[in-house]
Amino acid sequence: MGLIVQKFGGSSVANAERVMNVAKIVTDTYKQGNDVVVVVSAQGDTTDDLIAKAKEISDNPSKREMDMLLASGEQISIALLSMAIQKLGCPSVSLLGWQAGFQTNSVYSSARIKKINSARIKTELDNKKIVVVAGFQGINKYDDLTTLGRGGSDTSAVAIASALHADKCQIFTDVDGVYTADPRKVKNAKKLKEITYDEMLELATLGAQVLNNRSVEMAKKYNVELEVISSLNPIPGTIVKETANMEKMLVRGVTKDTDTSRISIVGLTDVPGVAFKIFSVLAAKNINVDIILQSVGRDGTKDIAFTVSTGNAQEAAEAVENLPFIGDAKVVRDDTVAKISVVGAGMETHPGTASTMFEALFNQDINIQMISTSEIKISVLIDKKDADRAVSAVHEAFFGNE
Amino acid sequence: MGLIVQKFGGSSVANAERVMNVAKIVTDTYKQGNDVVVVVSAQGDTTDDLIAKAKEISDNPSKREMDMLLASGEQISIALLSMAIQKLGCPSVSLLGWQAGFQTNSVYSSARIKKINSARIKTELDNKKIVVVAGFQGINKYDDLTTLGRGGSDTSAVAIASALHADKCQIFTDVDGVYTADPRKVKNAKKLKEITYDEMLELATLGAQVLNNRSVEMAKKYNVELEVISSLNPIPGTIVKETANMEKMLVRGVTKDTDTSRISIVGLTDVPGVAFKIFSVLAAKNINVDIILQSVGRDGTKDIAFTVSTGNAQEAAEAVENLPFIGDAKVVRDDTVAKISVVGAGMETHPGTASTMFEALFNQDINIQMISTSEIKISVLIDKKDADRAVSAVHEAFFGNE
Repeated sequence: MGLIVQKFGGSSVANAERVMNVAKIVTDTYKQGNDVVVVVSAQGDTTDDLIAKAKEISDNPSKREMDMLLASGEQISIALLSMAIQKLGCPSVSLLGWQAGFQTNSVYSSARIKKINSARIKTELDNKKIVVVAGFQGINKYDDLTTLGRGGSDTSAVAIASALHADKCQIFTDVDGVYTADPRKVKNAKKLKEITYDEMLELATLGAQVLNNRSVEMAKKYNVELEVISSLNPIPGTIVKETANMEKMLVRGVTKDTDTSRISIVGLTDVPGVAFKIFSVLAAKNINVDIILQSVGRDGTKDIAFTVSTGNAQEAAEAVENLPFIGDAKVVRDDTVAKISVVGAGMETHPGTASTMFEALFNQDINIQMISTSEIKISVLIDKKDADRAVSAVHEAFFGNE
Repeated sequence: MGLIVQKFGGSSVANAERVMNVAKIVTDTYKQGNDVVVVVSAQGDTTDDLIAKAKEISDNPSKREMDMLLASGEQISIALLSMAIQKLGCPSVSLLGWQAGFQTNSVYSSARIKKINSARIKTELDNKKIVVVAGFQGINKYDDLTTLGRGGSDTSAVAIASALHADKCQIFTDVDGVYTADPRKVKNAKKLKEITYDEMLELATLGAQVLNNRSVEMAKKYNVELEVISSLNPIPGTIVKETANMEKMLVRGVTKDTDTSRISIVGLTDVPGVAFKIFSVLAAKNINVDIILQSVGRDGTKDIAFTVSTGNAQEAAEAVENLPFIGDAKVVRDDTVAKISVVGAGMETHPGTASTMFEALFNQDINIQMISTSEIKISVLIDKKDADRAVSAVHEAFFGNE
């Protein structure tokens, strides 16, 4: 018995049958004596369909009008889910972002939540209603609709859980938890019972695609306990919290990111400020740089290499080529790379982690092109064609092959 | 130069091309120096599609949630139209019903407008914006969304025109005005330049299907000048106002209504109160009765016949049959009838109107089953199979055959 926030993504409410399935989960939780707030995304492809409608009208629609358009998506799903809950005999009420008290700043299409005025939600909960809230949306000081950007419904759920001091925030998705590796690719991938916010953040960034990063950051900041759980098979999933039970595991997961490209600048004249100038021009273009490697070359030159997401690679390479001091240095772009990472809060006190990983790759004859480490992760850049084999080998080295 | 309210129905904004067409009309009006408020319905079949989605979930969804669901339809169309207006280079802003200040009562699915707080619209107009408003919807005192029922967007447009003291309220539709008869059926049907509110009300009730009745009643009450005009061919349409230029016409139009059934009760014992009891039981069931005819029968009995819409005929016949005093009287239902009407404010001072109509029908050998008259209309009930021929003959009698 407590207050539980449950969030369901677009695929979980994609059609009438799935909406009824969600209603079943929600009403079961309610019938166990809990107060329940449900946060829902737009159905299935609704958001993409609405974007396509806008593109038919204008290549560059105003962001305010885009938010007005897109916010209709969750309006449909909350109404349908509330009907489904009532069909199952439980009282419910649907609330739009503004009705639920989501006040945001005015950055249309990627607004930040400033405050939640939860009075209406609390009143409805006091009346024993299941409260169905539109995720992803809010209202700014001009009384105009805003949206929180992709993955915003996760953030909505965590924000409500924090505002209401909920006992738990369950993020329902199409996987049943966080795994030590992609279970579709690695046959011995294990589901984690618990994981820390920081580990989850590293895994999310590295391509685990289970939880939106902003929502994990917010959960960490406000200490909201998250559970990643399957809407199709709601057995206990993975708990994300401040201190996770380590279960003697050094490493929490092995991930692969193939949306990465390497830009190498070979033969730069070795004068001060070169690196600063390169990365400030990339920052000015809003291009995120991931791994950076600088090495001393020969004859007073040096080489700098870095990785960016493949979508930014062309723009990054051109920006670097156009720098005045590049001179005779060669700029080489390579899209045939992948980043393999191991993540785990335990590794900082266990220096053997890196060598275990490198040995596993060496045994597979996989060449490491770049290395990057943080307190809780080690990433290596390798040839893209070796990526799946590398994940399996590294996973086996840490988790065995039983 | 003035303030013009323009209303576009669902078919006028059904796809991107039509939205652009509407944006062209709106921006042309704006560029002529007018302040423009545009009221829009949901796109094409959106409302029907949303109703179908709800029916997949529940046979009997709550009306509050239905309104939440349906209100998303106009949200999509206002955003798209605002984008299209901006694409054509004019400033615009879309507003939902509640943002535009539509305050309604709490009768979900057929709410009545209580008040319009037009401050936001006025601010946007002062900023030289074209204001695109979601028709059909408002908000009640609980901050919940409501809808005005079918045809509600016409009412929204008239209400805004009244609140803003607009110079004109243009209702764009797929016909280019109000005709003396259905122009698809009667080849000499003439477009009317002007018509009074009362005549329009009679024509709307009688099946002209151009304007929603509630909107005409409201326009009459607040003296809002309406224009019915085509969105595909925006030449001057028909003006609806208090006093119309008569142009020597006695009759404004000839209409046909085939959605009518006759219930006859033959051989009622002739005691006082019989008619009262019959029609009060129908009123209790919310069944509208149109023409009523009572005749004295033989042997102390009388006959009563009345018409209702065909959808109500079964329920009406059963209600009457179950009355305790019906006794041996026979209740007969007939769906093979049609009502033909002529409407015109001039006819009350021209007694020849009825005889002209009846003569035209007699010349066609069409039998009149019932007759009903008011100050501005004459209706007759005839066999349904004669309906189109009757309209043509009556139209020719009043408007000639040039």
